[in-house]
Amino acid sequence: MQFDLQHTDASSKARAGTITTRHGQIHTPIFMPVGTLGTVKAVEQRNLHADIEAEIILGNTYHLYLRPGTQVLEAAGGLHQFINWNKPILTDSGGYQVYSLTQRRKITEQGVTFCSHIDGSMHTFTPENVVDTQRTIGSDIMMVLDECTPFPCTYAYARQSMEMTHRWLQRGINQFKKTTNANNDYQALFPIVQGSIYKDLRIQSAETIASMDQPGNAIGGVCHPTGQLYEVTEWVCDILPVHKPRYLMGVGTPLDLLECMAIGVDMFDCVMPTRSGRNGRLFTTQGIINIKNSQWKQDFNAIDPGLDNYVSKHYTKAYLHHLFKSKEILGAQIASIHNLAFYLWLVKEARKQILIDNFKTWKESIQRTVMERL
Amino acid sequence: MQFDLQHTDASSKARAGTITTRHGQIHTPIFMPVGTLGTVKAVEQRNLHADIEAEIILGNTYHLYLRPGTQVLEAAGGLHQFINWNKPILTDSGGYQVYSLTQRRKITEQGVTFCSHIDGSMHTFTPENVVDTQRTIGSDIMMVLDECTPFPCTYAYARQSMEMTHRWLQRGINQFKKTTNANNDYQALFPIVQGSIYKDLRIQSAETIASMDQPGNAIGGVCHPTGQLYEVTEWVCDILPVHKPRYLMGVGTPLDLLECMAIGVDMFDCVMPTRSGRNGRLFTTQGIINIKNSQWKQDFNAIDPGLDNYVSKHYTKAYLHHLFKSKEILGAQIASIHNLAFYLWLVKEARKQILIDNFKTWKESIQRTVMERL
Repeated sequence: MQFDLQHTDASSKARAGTITTRHGQIHTPIFMPVGTLGTVKAVEQRNLHADIEAEIILGNTYHLYLRPGTQVLEAAGGLHQFINWNKPILTDSGGYQVYSLTQRRKITEQGVTFCSHIDGSMHTFTPENVVDTQRTIGSDIMMVLDECTPFPCTYAYARQSMEMTHRWLQRGINQFKKTTNANNDYQALFPIVQGSIYKDLRIQSAETIASMDQPGNAIGGVCHPTGQLYEVTEWVCDILPVHKPRYLMGVGTPLDLLECMAIGVDMFDCVMPTRSGRNGRLFTTQGIINIKNSQWKQDFNAIDPGLDNYVSKHYTKAYLHHLFKSKEILGAQIASIHNLAFYLWLVKEARKQILIDNFKTWKESIQRTVMERL
Repeated sequence: MQFDLQHTDASSKARAGTITTRHGQIHTPIFMPVGTLGTVKAVEQRNLHADIEAEIILGNTYHLYLRPGTQVLEAAGGLHQFINWNKPILTDSGGYQVYSLTQRRKITEQGVTFCSHIDGSMHTFTPENVVDTQRTIGSDIMMVLDECTPFPCTYAYARQSMEMTHRWLQRGINQFKKTTNANNDYQALFPIVQGSIYKDLRIQSAETIASMDQPGNAIGGVCHPTGQLYEVTEWVCDILPVHKPRYLMGVGTPLDLLECMAIGVDMFDCVMPTRSGRNGRLFTTQGIINIKNSQWKQDFNAIDPGLDNYVSKHYTKAYLHHLFKSKEILGAQIASIHNLAFYLWLVKEARKQILIDNFKTWKESIQRTVMERL
């Protein structure tokens, strides 16, 4: 994996770059649709290519490890082959999902033991075996096992947890080095900055992560409504190496993307566009819509004439309203494609504006129009 | 609407023809995917075009009348515009769905009064107003209101019902003639043969329907597991005019299609490919599959290499198995596209064989391979 920083906006800290992987190039800033179980929910792979123009998708190691399991993924020749997707894939370490099983997991220095949400069976994730699993998955970008601290979180807990995360990082990197082989030497391993909302911890963690000299770096544990997202992200971005991509995990709303691009974040992922889409909440270039509202019942305008993809241009708000009122699967399909196309439009448009040093002005105009609730 | 009978197979009564409508040509024998509420469940319109190569789809007047309602459909400029589908559409009269509301409807000479399954509101369908509704929908082929008799059904009931259906037919045709105008003079109205399983009634009904000289004719009330489908259909087909298309309503399995094509049926519709698809039951050129069975867990062969569409060729059985086990929407999407593509392949292949007088031999080979349960 290689990262070329092409330009930094003159009016902000926003950056435009290119990540080159064995499975193709990624133009940053980028948003990665979440493909939890080897499928971006309700979206076919062809639509990811042609309509959404996704350049990379994300898979969840926890879910893939349980189903279909590493045996099937290995027999398939990896996740790309299994799901018929030939562009880059990033996988998380599985940690985040495991910690959310609050009543069914135990964290020790060794790793984390948990009960499967499917059948209650016991499993252990260690910094070493999540590397092994991601080797089998064959993702282009793998993540180390970290502890994503709860929120709120005491200083003492945040510090101890961060220190363990750093020890796990070293173990993960050791395992990564040991397991390099001809088949998967294209893979990159990203470490994750933790430290909750405490500035000295975040700075210490960012410095530790930066010193590991991995090809890219991630910021974790920021995905809480009151988690001081922008402030924490800026502390960390100011320390992380300039010539490596910065991935802000699990973020966020379109507004969050704009603000965090301005701080210097290059990569994002979030279930919001697909989950909101399945619930009828649409992000459009004209504003935010709840398509179930009766005001759209006889609106025969396109879902979003401001986007170039087929579904946003060719289906009307009235039709999509009807599909949602009738609880038809096609409603979720169209809304998911549309919302993801919007997110990809947003980051591509941002990139254009960065390249002409106009990001700040553009961002303000977008905030006035696109973020309005209609 | 125009029908050109091109060829009748030398080895059977199977026919190849072409129906020409304002929205394009239909090559018969044809299968029509069911688009109940203005959407073929879980299938996007683009996939109906490109993958399934559907030449006509079906809409249900009962469902469309209730939701989105005629007001919205009229404002949209008809169903084609509303759903973004520019090929032919056939609509049923709504009768079939109403009769299935057994506890919530009352049939009189005037028409049928029923309670909506959505909100319990009272509505009446008459031979006249279902024509009006289908005028608003703008379907290329409309159906008259008939009574689809229950099964089993006494001779006395079947006879009285058939006679009322014939009286309703005349009323429907009168209304159809009265409402012709510049906007919808492309529409055709098909009458429906009833008469349950009684040969003399079926013959009498077929003769009555034939005498109406409508551009096409339908056979109703045959869709029961023990309804002597092939026998009843043959009685009727032998009477219906040769130079008009024959539509067998609500049929059926791939085997039913083969048998009824051999009798001289030209048009079919059924929810089976989509409903079975959503349940993981696949029709393939190699046989019938339950994709949820564990035998497919590590089968990395294409879903159906015998079909030319993208999903059947590019996704594996193992992947589709995984999607169904994980209850992912994409499983229903892929299986629905695949099954419909199979049905359209079956009728297109049949047409080729009819044109070279080889239908019977081909049908027997298909029955040995394609109908086998794997």
